[in-house]
Amino acid sequence: MTTNEKIEAIRSAMREAGIDVYLIPSQDAHQSEYVADYWRARAWASGFTGSAGTLVITEEKACLWVDGRYHIQAEKQVAGSSVELFKDGLAGVPSLNTWLSENVKAGSVVGFDGRTISHDAFERCKRLMPGASFKVEDLVSGVWTDRPALPQAPVEEMSLVLAGESRADKLGRVRAHLAEKKADYLMLASLDDIAWTLNLRGGDILHTPVFYAYLLVGAEKAWLFIEQAKLEKVVKASLAADGVEVCPYDGLPALLPELPAGTVALAPGRINETLYTSVPSGWKVLPEPDCTTYMKACKNPVERQNIREAHVKDGVAMVRFIKWLKERVGQAEPIDEWEAGEYLDGLRLATDGCFDLSFGTIAGYMENGASAHYSAKKGEAAVLRPEGLIVVDSGGQYRQGTTDITRTIVLGPVTDRMKFAYTLVLKGHLALARAKFLEKTSGHYLDILARQFLWQHGMDYRHGTGHGVGYVLSVHEGPQNIGRGPVQVPLEVGMVISDEPGYYPEGEFGVRIENLVMVQEAETTVDGRFLQFETLALCPYDKAAIDWSLITPEEKAQIDAYHARVYDTLAPFLNEEERTWLAEETKA
Amino acid sequence: MTTNEKIEAIRSAMREAGIDVYLIPSQDAHQSEYVADYWRARAWASGFTGSAGTLVITEEKACLWVDGRYHIQAEKQVAGSSVELFKDGLAGVPSLNTWLSENVKAGSVVGFDGRTISHDAFERCKRLMPGASFKVEDLVSGVWTDRPALPQAPVEEMSLVLAGESRADKLGRVRAHLAEKKADYLMLASLDDIAWTLNLRGGDILHTPVFYAYLLVGAEKAWLFIEQAKLEKVVKASLAADGVEVCPYDGLPALLPELPAGTVALAPGRINETLYTSVPSGWKVLPEPDCTTYMKACKNPVERQNIREAHVKDGVAMVRFIKWLKERVGQAEPIDEWEAGEYLDGLRLATDGCFDLSFGTIAGYMENGASAHYSAKKGEAAVLRPEGLIVVDSGGQYRQGTTDITRTIVLGPVTDRMKFAYTLVLKGHLALARAKFLEKTSGHYLDILARQFLWQHGMDYRHGTGHGVGYVLSVHEGPQNIGRGPVQVPLEVGMVISDEPGYYPEGEFGVRIENLVMVQEAETTVDGRFLQFETLALCPYDKAAIDWSLITPEEKAQIDAYHARVYDTLAPFLNEEERTWLAEETKA
Repeated sequence: MTTNEKIEAIRSAMREAGIDVYLIPSQDAHQSEYVADYWRARAWASGFTGSAGTLVITEEKACLWVDGRYHIQAEKQVAGSSVELFKDGLAGVPSLNTWLSENVKAGSVVGFDGRTISHDAFERCKRLMPGASFKVEDLVSGVWTDRPALPQAPVEEMSLVLAGESRADKLGRVRAHLAEKKADYLMLASLDDIAWTLNLRGGDILHTPVFYAYLLVGAEKAWLFIEQAKLEKVVKASLAADGVEVCPYDGLPALLPELPAGTVALAPGRINETLYTSVPSGWKVLPEPDCTTYMKACKNPVERQNIREAHVKDGVAMVRFIKWLKERVGQAEPIDEWEAGEYLDGLRLATDGCFDLSFGTIAGYMENGASAHYSAKKGEAAVLRPEGLIVVDSGGQYRQGTTDITRTIVLGPVTDRMKFAYTLVLKGHLALARAKFLEKTSGHYLDILARQFLWQHGMDYRHGTGHGVGYVLSVHEGPQNIGRGPVQVPLEVGMVISDEPGYYPEGEFGVRIENLVMVQEAETTVDGRFLQFETLALCPYDKAAIDWSLITPEEKAQIDAYHARVYDTLAPFLNEEERTWLAEETKA
Repeated sequence: MTTNEKIEAIRSAMREAGIDVYLIPSQDAHQSEYVADYWRARAWASGFTGSAGTLVITEEKACLWVDGRYHIQAEKQVAGSSVELFKDGLAGVPSLNTWLSENVKAGSVVGFDGRTISHDAFERCKRLMPGASFKVEDLVSGVWTDRPALPQAPVEEMSLVLAGESRADKLGRVRAHLAEKKADYLMLASLDDIAWTLNLRGGDILHTPVFYAYLLVGAEKAWLFIEQAKLEKVVKASLAADGVEVCPYDGLPALLPELPAGTVALAPGRINETLYTSVPSGWKVLPEPDCTTYMKACKNPVERQNIREAHVKDGVAMVRFIKWLKERVGQAEPIDEWEAGEYLDGLRLATDGCFDLSFGTIAGYMENGASAHYSAKKGEAAVLRPEGLIVVDSGGQYRQGTTDITRTIVLGPVTDRMKFAYTLVLKGHLALARAKFLEKTSGHYLDILARQFLWQHGMDYRHGTGHGVGYVLSVHEGPQNIGRGPVQVPLEVGMVISDEPGYYPEGEFGVRIENLVMVQEAETTVDGRFLQFETLALCPYDKAAIDWSLITPEEKAQIDAYHARVYDTLAPFLNEEERTWLAEETKA
């Protein structure tokens, strides 16, 4: 089917259902950052395959909104179809919200698949179109005849040695929270929250070891809604032993009316509209962020130690990669960004305990390093020359933790401008890493430490400085973060977060330096309780990119101490040649 | 009358008025930080003379709440009376709010002088005592037979050369704001907002050149409510020419019903309950912060230049004072903190254009420097020895601006600990002063620049880093500030703010270093519009207190450049001996 044929087919389903305007967003039923193919209805219907965008179909039009990352890609992909492209952010282009509020006439019936919009988003949507009525209906499945099945990857139990806290204890903490809030149930749709709570891991989403499911926790029992085939007998038995009953994936709406009515805690931004409306009348909803999100953000002592060990493994892969890359680039036969990334992925996946990447490796050479969300494609990637800088942002899913690291690597001669930018970014990265701060401090308050040196020269980067990271889970996982946005939650002991300032002069080159760090106790004095960061990542900075005249003695000591730690920790896992190379790279 | 007799007299007035619980807070009718004697009813009734505290009188009890600054003073002052003291902040001591919500029985009648509590505060109060009813009545005036009169200082017009913007233009800006917000009137009770809007200055409150008044601005006319005797004919004529009608101070409630009904913009936290309830039914209230607060925070070009000149004068007085103090302390006849402060005040007030201090000078020697809100009293102040540190926080009201400066001054040998603390505070002060930052940045986001060096050593100060300062107005004037508290308004060009980190080891010594700075354009680059601070204060730091081993080359250059500017700017106003001394103090 062509795009136009798909849109016509949806239009005919709309007429049958009495729907005037049909919305197809990019979400799955769990508000996941990455989604399984089953949920890529917007990509299927519009032909545009990027991760974000919304398609709106009316009798006359098919309109697609995409953000700045995807203006060029979407233009190519919708060319020749009847899809009208709205490039979000460009002057004169109405946003989706503006368009809806101006173009949807009073009396119109607006439809959407209720699984793909959170209750919060639906409420906002309704306010945009006060004169419209709404109909929740999945019109795509009937038209998309070869729609992929929901993924069926097996779900495994995480042993206590890796999880550090039993399922029963976690459920106990959830129930204590519910009791405190006078709630009877917790309804979870967020996949990493469900995986964490139950000490289970799956493989339904690329690079994120979660599984499609819902979870309802009551005072005595819990109910897991999941495709039965994913669970082996032994896992089912283990769940049963902890009072977790396994039900069909779509069985939650049918179960609720059979339970004693009560108050259900849920996060309206994470629960989809279909699920939200399944709460029976007579029940009360307590809207609040999922309590498990806060619990899982503070890693327990076992997780902390495991994460450190994962980072040793990751550091070995990174060191081997950087040595190989620097040597390989000088050779006669050229390689490109994509091949470099493939080599790194191979090294990582060959590491004991590494079962996946934590996201698709980003390798951006020179001007490609300056473009946000650049992803090298096989056969279309830039060839690496023995000069300039390449930004490599990558990570692994290990049995012992999730990693995420960025290094900007010198491939040959670099300009003073590159060294200047690299050094300012490094100074900010180091200042944040060595910060000591009073408890109850947010990432917002710390953010300027990473930007201050760039700002002194009128330079900045347009992304956050740090994102939270899960434990063998999502590589982007809140609630903590570091950035200029609204004030965030206080940083607490055990939280893992990235420290990744950058600089991106368009058309020239990119710089980003990223380590994961973990919040630790520092000291308690008469003035209060102070926290600090422990750096988890183990991989040298590139001394060839540093302008030492800008580095203070304190910073030099910090670099040297970190490099000494990198060498001492990784050397036992390296061969003679690698050790010699690392010794040189980490020499004071 | 003894305190007990006063309380009994109020009780008898309560019985007559049918009031069970009577609240006497410390505010005036305008929510001023400092108040005239007329408004010191709580001090009169309780015997406790501090600036903050609340007295609650019931048939059985008289309870006084005071915060940590005043625990000792209040204990002495209420001793021997029936007043029961509640030391706020101590473990086991119920707060005023807790006490009210637990002790005021349903059905009680709670009374207070409606002028002394803002509408916002009254609304919070009502929620604490849902079962009570409320009666607004001034019971104190009938009992306080020698209550001081409201102050009657003359009000003067500020010339355009000093104000930089005419009254008509300011009223025009207010009216444009009202039109934008679809409001018909602005009601102002905040004294500095009224003084700024009308280009008038008074003398009703010590150290703050404001006058007791209310202002109502309509689309065509404005009404100033003020004791007529304060205004000379020529001022009245000038007001009339700008369409400002002068009415009696208490005439606002009577005027409103005579005006066309409309929407009145007002700040419920600044408008007292009596005034708030005078808004006629049929009118609408638009609650918002006073628009004039934002307008006056960004000084206009004329004000900016005048403020710079005021700081030259202030710098001369400070330099003369520090030279005198360092020389004077070594002499045979000792002086104390109070005498030192008096000498400084004399120097400042002898300066051309300085008509008042901007607050009572704080001079705290050694351990007194460590105690918050220490104020030396004549005959009870600590004697200065030729050793250690004295903190001197002071400022002047000049015709051209308001100053506020703190220097920590070395009087003789100092310990390594003192130098360490001084140097860390100075490093933070310098880091904030040299910050360059993107527009829309708040003081909250910048705050860590001033604390970072102390925090690295587990040290902190328990006050904000910076407060806004008015123009020939209040020395504490928002909305801008710099601190750890909730995110504040963005810093904008023309805002004046203090940069004053400190350190206060109890029982030892205090360090605080404060300059006023003003927000200026820095540069606009591809990454955005950057702002920076211009340092206004001109007075050397004390090199004898600096541990140079902790100072980076960048900081040294910053100190040297500042000192060179201090010398070059002030030298023309100093005599030979003073110049020689300053040259030495500011030598690179």
